[in-house]
Amino acid sequence: MSRLKITDTTLRDGHQSLWATRMTTADMVPILEKIDSVGYHSLEVWGGATFDVCMRFLDEDPWERLRTIKKYVRKTPLQMLLRAQSLVGYQLYPDDVVRAFIARAVANGIDIIRIFDALNDLRNMEVPIEAAKKEGAHVQGTVVYTISPVHTTEHYLKTALELEGMGVDSICIKDMAGLLAPFEAYELVKLFKEKLRIPVQLHSHYIGGLAVGAYLEAARAGVDVVDTASVPLAFGASQPPVETVVRALAGTPYDTGLDLNLLFDIARYFDDLRRELGYERGVTRITDMWVFQHQVPGGMISNLVSQLKEQKAADRIHEVLAEIPRVRADLGYPPLVTPTSQIVGTQAVLNVLTGQRYKIVPGEVKNYVRGLYGRPPAPIDEEVRRIIIGDEEPIQGRPADALPPRLDEARQEIGDLAENEEDVISYALFPQVARKFLEDRRAGRLRPGRRTTKPQVGDKVEAGGKRKM
Amino acid sequence: MSRLKITDTTLRDGHQSLWATRMTTADMVPILEKIDSVGYHSLEVWGGATFDVCMRFLDEDPWERLRTIKKYVRKTPLQMLLRAQSLVGYQLYPDDVVRAFIARAVANGIDIIRIFDALNDLRNMEVPIEAAKKEGAHVQGTVVYTISPVHTTEHYLKTALELEGMGVDSICIKDMAGLLAPFEAYELVKLFKEKLRIPVQLHSHYIGGLAVGAYLEAARAGVDVVDTASVPLAFGASQPPVETVVRALAGTPYDTGLDLNLLFDIARYFDDLRRELGYERGVTRITDMWVFQHQVPGGMISNLVSQLKEQKAADRIHEVLAEIPRVRADLGYPPLVTPTSQIVGTQAVLNVLTGQRYKIVPGEVKNYVRGLYGRPPAPIDEEVRRIIIGDEEPIQGRPADALPPRLDEARQEIGDLAENEEDVISYALFPQVARKFLEDRRAGRLRPGRRTTKPQVGDKVEAGGKRKM
Ligand SMILES: [Co+2]
Ligand SMILES: [Co+2]
Repeated sequence: MSRLKITDTTLRDGHQSLWATRMTTADMVPILEKIDSVGYHSLEVWGGATFDVCMRFLDEDPWERLRTIKKYVRKTPLQMLLRAQSLVGYQLYPDDVVRAFIARAVANGIDIIRIFDALNDLRNMEVPIEAAKKEGAHVQGTVVYTISPVHTTEHYLKTALELEGMGVDSICIKDMAGLLAPFEAYELVKLFKEKLRIPVQLHSHYIGGLAVGAYLEAARAGVDVVDTASVPLAFGASQPPVETVVRALAGTPYDTGLDLNLLFDIARYFDDLRRELGYERGVTRITDMWVFQHQVPGGMISNLVSQLKEQKAADRIHEVLAEIPRVRADLGYPPLVTPTSQIVGTQAVLNVLTGQRYKIVPGEVKNYVRGLYGRPPAPIDEEVRRIIIGDEEPIQGRPADALPPRLDEARQEIGDLAENEEDVISYALFPQVARKFLEDRRAGRLRPGRRTTKPQVGDKVEAGGKRKM
Repeated sequence: MSRLKITDTTLRDGHQSLWATRMTTADMVPILEKIDSVGYHSLEVWGGATFDVCMRFLDEDPWERLRTIKKYVRKTPLQMLLRAQSLVGYQLYPDDVVRAFIARAVANGIDIIRIFDALNDLRNMEVPIEAAKKEGAHVQGTVVYTISPVHTTEHYLKTALELEGMGVDSICIKDMAGLLAPFEAYELVKLFKEKLRIPVQLHSHYIGGLAVGAYLEAARAGVDVVDTASVPLAFGASQPPVETVVRALAGTPYDTGLDLNLLFDIARYFDDLRRELGYERGVTRITDMWVFQHQVPGGMISNLVSQLKEQKAADRIHEVLAEIPRVRADLGYPPLVTPTSQIVGTQAVLNVLTGQRYKIVPGEVKNYVRGLYGRPPAPIDEEVRRIIIGDEEPIQGRPADALPPRLDEARQEIGDLAENEEDVISYALFPQVARKFLEDRRAGRLRPGRRTTKPQVGDKVEAGGKRKM
């Protein structure tokens, strides 16, 4: 019987899920002190797609954003999302880059690092966990939730226990597709609370509407923290609204103790911003409900439709949606989250459009089959493996072991365009994007601030494809 | 441990809450047989505002709509909402009209009649219950849920037990403002299931997002039936989506057993219709969240804003919202549901605009204080009563006892414009609207079918004001 604590995701997952990650630092600043006064457990404000989007679309230095937020948020711990060995990118990085990135993230203001690997492959989390612990951060290990024959309660518990053994400070159950049904949430959290000694946090997306129920059942089962967003950036592809969770638990043993009037003030700010920027509220469409049938979240469906439109084949979306579960099965049931959502989605589109399964196989699918992203939850289908990589032997060890150090090389390449170590890391992560950003900065060409128009379809595909993180 | 049963409200409360009750019979017919095949406990398709709107805005005979639906829905019981002695109108009707209406409703196809009184005044439900039982309908007695010092668990249980004593076949907990928090739902349903022998049904509106959680907790507590709508007509001011509830309970002891694929087919039909008619999906705005602070549901807020706009005083909405709880307290804490939502809302607007409380008091507020709508949940403030009706004595008996029979008179007045007893009843309920409708029919001027444009603000005020039923 204890108060439920709340992590606010408005400034990371909220706008990543609904506004293509386009909220600027300037638009965050005026409300930060008020958010800091709410009494949240933590604020998720960094990581995921924000790093890339800052430089690529907003003319902003992501490190500068972090320092700015830290200046105004004095009491509440700042949290980030880290894609394990992929950090805030879409490929695995060498260990030296991982260690340097994490060191500078903590030095610039991050208190809590949530680390997940799409495949729940702990080998991809070893170095990030060790580095984050060394820097003194609170390290949250993550169990990615999905539905498949091999994603059993035992699988999740085993993963969580191993993470605890690796020294993480808390565990997050990450339900990026809004698939966790409320009574399943109760059972899973109850088991975790019985078997683990560290706190348990639940991260769900609203999508088809299960998440509020999942949070309440998780509260009954003793979950320590849940993730919510301010109502104008909640619902739909985003988290459940904080206001609903606060009201639902008021007067119960799990009462959050948060002040609804203060939350309404904050919501008013974001709602005005939403109108000014022209974004719609999060909603649940029929296509979002389909997630219950084939586990493909609505955001991924939008991206697939965009891909199909480019090929003038938007009408084949239903074939693609039917193909996705088959590709998932072939590939050992990866959860549909960055980067495996793109891997599975692209292959399914190709299988449908070419009319022959695995006739065309993109490089990232080959690399996935080679084991370069980690170990799939289940073995890859023998025949499919042979079609894709022939007699080639998949790697057996930790994928990053194959990657040579990169930081010194990056430092030399970027030269004096980098004004500090953070710039070098940005370049190591996103060479092209960071170089352009640093060049523009040197030339005085940066124009940070609001974009008056919403991102175009092309942009959306790009940022949207990175959004369920 | 038993399956949860579902009542589908799409064709009544769903479009009343989101589409200003404007769905035509012609737009219902193509999907009726599919809905009938789902295995719903019942379909709420009639009553509430539908009767009035059929004649007033759609050039449709509401009785004809009922017969048409009955023709296509052969298996699933048809349900209606009845405002006790007010039937489907906004005033109390004499007993002869009540009996005749109910007799014809059952004769034309209604199987289940849900009867509620805004004040939970059982004297307003006596004759409707007796009449409905006499006609052989399943009679559902309703407990209206709200938040006030006198709306205690004991009040609800006492009301429910008395309704059971009056012979109703089941009990509905009616949460028209989406105020029932999930764990409160659990406690209330559990108590009802312990103390009552008849089935218990829960009716919530989504509004601020509590309703899915309330349904799940109610399921745990043994509720027999809950009310949902197809997703394009769910969320926001409407019910929770059926798809979410079905998915949330799949594989649990409360599994609804309904087929999600079939539900998606039906949702597709309504979503296409939604786009064609130009209605938006149900959403949760900040103003909807305010219901948690002052119990004023979003639909009522829209109406208040419209009223204020007509007076060029839209900026005073916050004063009105602050005044509403005070007026409610003065008037003995009526729940905000038709007709008391209009009574309280109008008085609050006048109190704010005139700058002096109860300086202007409309006729319906005077009648409310006179006891003509029934007995308020708590005594009316003495001073306020004196300001409004002076030394006049409120009536003590059953309000309808004061009303002389009306049916024969109505039959004479409408003469041969009425082609059957149903026409006479329509006229007794809505003299002006029905006379115009019957005249238009006689003259061949009816143009039933879709309205290509959405209702205007003026229409919305009217129909919207009647919508939380
Ligand atoms: Co997320
Ligand atoms: Co209702």
